[in-house]
Amino acid sequence: METTAKKGDLISFRPDIKVLDATLRDGGLVNNFRFTDEFVKDLYQANIKAGVDYMEFGYKASKDVFKKEDFGKWKFCEEEDIRAIVGDNDSDLKIAVMSDVGRTDYKRDIIDRKDSVIDMIRTATYIHQIPTAIEMIEDAKEKGYETTVNIMAISKVNDEDLNNGLELLGQSGVDYIYLVDSFGSFYPEQIKKLSDKFLNIGAKYNKTIGMHAHNNQQLAFANTIEALSYGVSLLDATVSGMGRGAGNCYMESLLGFLRNPKYSLTPIMDFVEKHILKLKAAGAIWGYDIPYLLTGILNSHPSSAIQFIKEGRSDYTAYMHQLIDEN
Amino acid sequence: METTAKKGDLISFRPDIKVLDATLRDGGLVNNFRFTDEFVKDLYQANIKAGVDYMEFGYKASKDVFKKEDFGKWKFCEEEDIRAIVGDNDSDLKIAVMSDVGRTDYKRDIIDRKDSVIDMIRTATYIHQIPTAIEMIEDAKEKGYETTVNIMAISKVNDEDLNNGLELLGQSGVDYIYLVDSFGSFYPEQIKKLSDKFLNIGAKYNKTIGMHAHNNQQLAFANTIEALSYGVSLLDATVSGMGRGAGNCYMESLLGFLRNPKYSLTPIMDFVEKHILKLKAAGAIWGYDIPYLLTGILNSHPSSAIQFIKEGRSDYTAYMHQLIDEN
Repeated sequence: METTAKKGDLISFRPDIKVLDATLRDGGLVNNFRFTDEFVKDLYQANIKAGVDYMEFGYKASKDVFKKEDFGKWKFCEEEDIRAIVGDNDSDLKIAVMSDVGRTDYKRDIIDRKDSVIDMIRTATYIHQIPTAIEMIEDAKEKGYETTVNIMAISKVNDEDLNNGLELLGQSGVDYIYLVDSFGSFYPEQIKKLSDKFLNIGAKYNKTIGMHAHNNQQLAFANTIEALSYGVSLLDATVSGMGRGAGNCYMESLLGFLRNPKYSLTPIMDFVEKHILKLKAAGAIWGYDIPYLLTGILNSHPSSAIQFIKEGRSDYTAYMHQLIDEN
Repeated sequence: METTAKKGDLISFRPDIKVLDATLRDGGLVNNFRFTDEFVKDLYQANIKAGVDYMEFGYKASKDVFKKEDFGKWKFCEEEDIRAIVGDNDSDLKIAVMSDVGRTDYKRDIIDRKDSVIDMIRTATYIHQIPTAIEMIEDAKEKGYETTVNIMAISKVNDEDLNNGLELLGQSGVDYIYLVDSFGSFYPEQIKKLSDKFLNIGAKYNKTIGMHAHNNQQLAFANTIEALSYGVSLLDATVSGMGRGAGNCYMESLLGFLRNPKYSLTPIMDFVEKHILKLKAAGAIWGYDIPYLLTGILNSHPSSAIQFIKEGRSDYTAYMHQLIDEN
């Protein structure tokens, strides 16, 4: 089966495509999840008006692993904190949270879906943690949730391990398998090949494939539409690309591209005008910059680039040689 | 002939690829060409060290059409001004200038190549000006120059006119025909189709195809590497994407992508550290922003977006409706 044939065109729309707003979760990595309630309420309303399908509120992190006082509440996504924003969520927007392997007490902290306002549990895993991830996924499935799995840092995983991991996940109960470009290191032609691989697993095991991109090389949007053009259909984006380091695919770009009449760009632009400009003016830093380009090119974690920028450094060449040495 | 087959891979390199730095010319549209001599000298040296193939110094505009006092000298690119920077240009870097149809007194101001330090004359034309462009190209060819033609605003040109224009240019003496995304409105899959069209003309008439992208949708780099992957081989970029409105393909990204050992990213990063950060701190504004995204999506000239940003406005939704009304 040739899965890499182009699906759809630039005038019609594919009803299978769904959009997930990850602003609070990936953007929370920029400001330690310290968003005002007004920000979160307005983002929730903007997503509803914009026709966004899922809104990720943050991590379901364990308070045994992380200290409550070190983070804003969206690091933990307590049921009552989400309900304070959405009530019973009487809307078409579904609510997602992320559950990190080894950092979530999922047996205790993830309650039955019938008692929760959450709709979807997203499990983030490294390749070597997949057996644990599958336990977490099956737990969430049993509790009634939609589930995704996000395999991180696959740009550092060899083909055989990735194939084996995908087979295991294919055989699990997970609904969505994500292609994640953690380091923003993939070019579109690599995304094409990876989409093919993931879509083949999806076809074999009846899973839907998602895409989560990073903007280190200013390719997050390009890679997202590259993946969708072959059939990847659950698309992550964040408002103004807010996310760790170089950030993510811009929601504005994605909604400007999609042709489904249910989507509207204007509520997101209004949200940018009200909240994002203020956040940036107050000193929150994310988005494309040379240090992130370098970690992208060199397929490295962005942490040292975040540090470089925090220190106000601009000795890019010295930093590049440091990165190459440490790679 | 299937020209849209992928050429090359991500590990080897294609010796046919050449890079053109358009920082002074497209970036000059940001600051009316008012660069310091130190900036220009350092950029020239950086390009030599980085292995860049061509450096465009600016426009060869007529002083009968534009007042000298309204612009920096790179609007006019007088022979002696270029020589003050490059001497006799004893280097492998070739020197280009842009000649605008209707704005260049080419018979008077473009002298024989044997008396000039300039190597390449680039002719920028709208589709309806192609007969005049061809006169200018033939004049430059006769004077001994390498020549390019850059057809602007093709996103507003119908297929039949574009085909006819390309046929005329194919029959002319021009060396390079550029695919220009003036409004940053093309998606990679459109660039694929256009690359195919341009490369077919190139194959038929023995012309080389170039790419000049704009970053309205953060697709300038993605579209450039999309075009090159099919065989487009003269690639425009600017340092930090400096160019009108949303700017261009970042030289940093392009050099980070290319595998030819002759190219080096570090001289460009050093130039950014010394000059570009200062330029931005002093208030020069270019690069991706929502108003440019909107003109990109709506296939419009960026002038009103530049004005919107200059006025410090952030009422994006009102601006979008204004754009739709005026489109």
